[in-house]
Amino acid sequence: MANSASGDSMVHRLVRVIAAFDSEHPTLSGAELARRAALPSSTAYRMVDELLAESLLDRDGQRLRLGTRLWELVSRGSKVLGLREAALPFMEDVQAVVGHHTTLGVIDQQDVLYIERIGSNNSTINITRVAGRLPIHATSTGLILTAFGPTEAQETFLRRLPKLTDATVTDPDELRRMLAEMRHSGYCVMPGTIVPESTGVAVPVFSADGTAIAGLSVVIPRENGPVQPSITALRTAARGISRALGWDGTLRDAIRRSL
Amino acid sequence: MANSASGDSMVHRLVRVIAAFDSEHPTLSGAELARRAALPSSTAYRMVDELLAESLLDRDGQRLRLGTRLWELVSRGSKVLGLREAALPFMEDVQAVVGHHTTLGVIDQQDVLYIERIGSNNSTINITRVAGRLPIHATSTGLILTAFGPTEAQETFLRRLPKLTDATVTDPDELRRMLAEMRHSGYCVMPGTIVPESTGVAVPVFSADGTAIAGLSVVIPRENGPVQPSITALRTAARGISRALGWDGTLRDAIRRSL
Repeated sequence: MANSASGDSMVHRLVRVIAAFDSEHPTLSGAELARRAALPSSTAYRMVDELLAESLLDRDGQRLRLGTRLWELVSRGSKVLGLREAALPFMEDVQAVVGHHTTLGVIDQQDVLYIERIGSNNSTINITRVAGRLPIHATSTGLILTAFGPTEAQETFLRRLPKLTDATVTDPDELRRMLAEMRHSGYCVMPGTIVPESTGVAVPVFSADGTAIAGLSVVIPRENGPVQPSITALRTAARGISRALGWDGTLRDAIRRSL
Repeated sequence: MANSASGDSMVHRLVRVIAAFDSEHPTLSGAELARRAALPSSTAYRMVDELLAESLLDRDGQRLRLGTRLWELVSRGSKVLGLREAALPFMEDVQAVVGHHTTLGVIDQQDVLYIERIGSNNSTINITRVAGRLPIHATSTGLILTAFGPTEAQETFLRRLPKLTDATVTDPDELRRMLAEMRHSGYCVMPGTIVPESTGVAVPVFSADGTAIAGLSVVIPRENGPVQPSITALRTAARGISRALGWDGTLRDAIRRSL
């Protein structure tokens, strides 16, 4: 595969072009795209022509945006789509019962990546967004997935813990103890670790082989009474999602007994 | 940009690699990928290495799948995400009121591309899926968007009309009359045009500039009494989505008066 004079691969340059577009920059001029992707203009314009020909970019008047076809190609083959389609009806149930933002997140490259979020605009403060990332240790989703994840990943994670608010736990021993507790209880409650006003509550979603593949979470106002109803709603819904993914309830009990 | 000996561009080969994965083939071996993408093995393996390095592909045991990072990059910058995020709360309202599958579709490259679908598994038969396509003239979404779309697109569309079921309308004159009626009424009701047992009902969603950018639709059992409640729920929700997208209600009235 052809590399540029600077040695970076075609695929890497393509990633830079796609990553130049985001929710703050949904459309770009050719010059803006070249600058944001750190590409020489001639390279950028040549790539734009090819990407337009394949409908990976679309024209939007004088500007460019990611092509709907690119979204389609990626969505059809992505495991994210299957997971979020299985989860969405159950997320609506949680939303109906709890009445606050409900999110679905996975761990990807040492972050929590949110793949779905539903909720009204009246819901409590929630900085998560679909396709947005947050640090693992600052989120209930990240912690519950770490608690139910492989031991090596836990140790890697415990070595890098920046503080985000006064409530963010960064002491490895305290976190180790919290993770053990979460494995036992099956849920994580984190008050004010990212935004002081909110509490995150998360439970794991299991795939057919018993892996904790996603975290189902609600963000509720911190001073909003007991969290138990949220935990109950989440656990109920997470069982439904897991079952829709082929999970056999007995498997998880087996895993829990072995812990 | 480098072209292969066979003359197709790097971008085109990359599209073939991504398109090799879909909901029926979420994971592929290297050899399967090369075959489905119609690439020489050596080219395919070289591309796989680069795509793995950029996390555009992930390993899944011995197999490959599209990378979660690819979904993330594409979703963050895609107009699809903004549209479906604006629509989702209102789609839940329709789902709650009508109780059947609710879909959001756009016209892309002479098809209807469904970008969101919600509904219970108990809902009526519905062959739409997220990131799936259907022919424009066979769907209520496609017809209502054609009715509210540019005249040239209507004429192009009327020239190519394969029949899908006995109920699919393929006579250009009858369709022209139907489209005019839909522009006037603001909705489309299509009984059994794809699946004989179901009726599709769709209304347009407008963007800030008054363009009909998406169709909001429900699929209801064909023998299920009057469709008026579905129409009312859809029109109400579509106004909400359009307003969330910056649409000014008066603009549409102006458009309708001009028809």
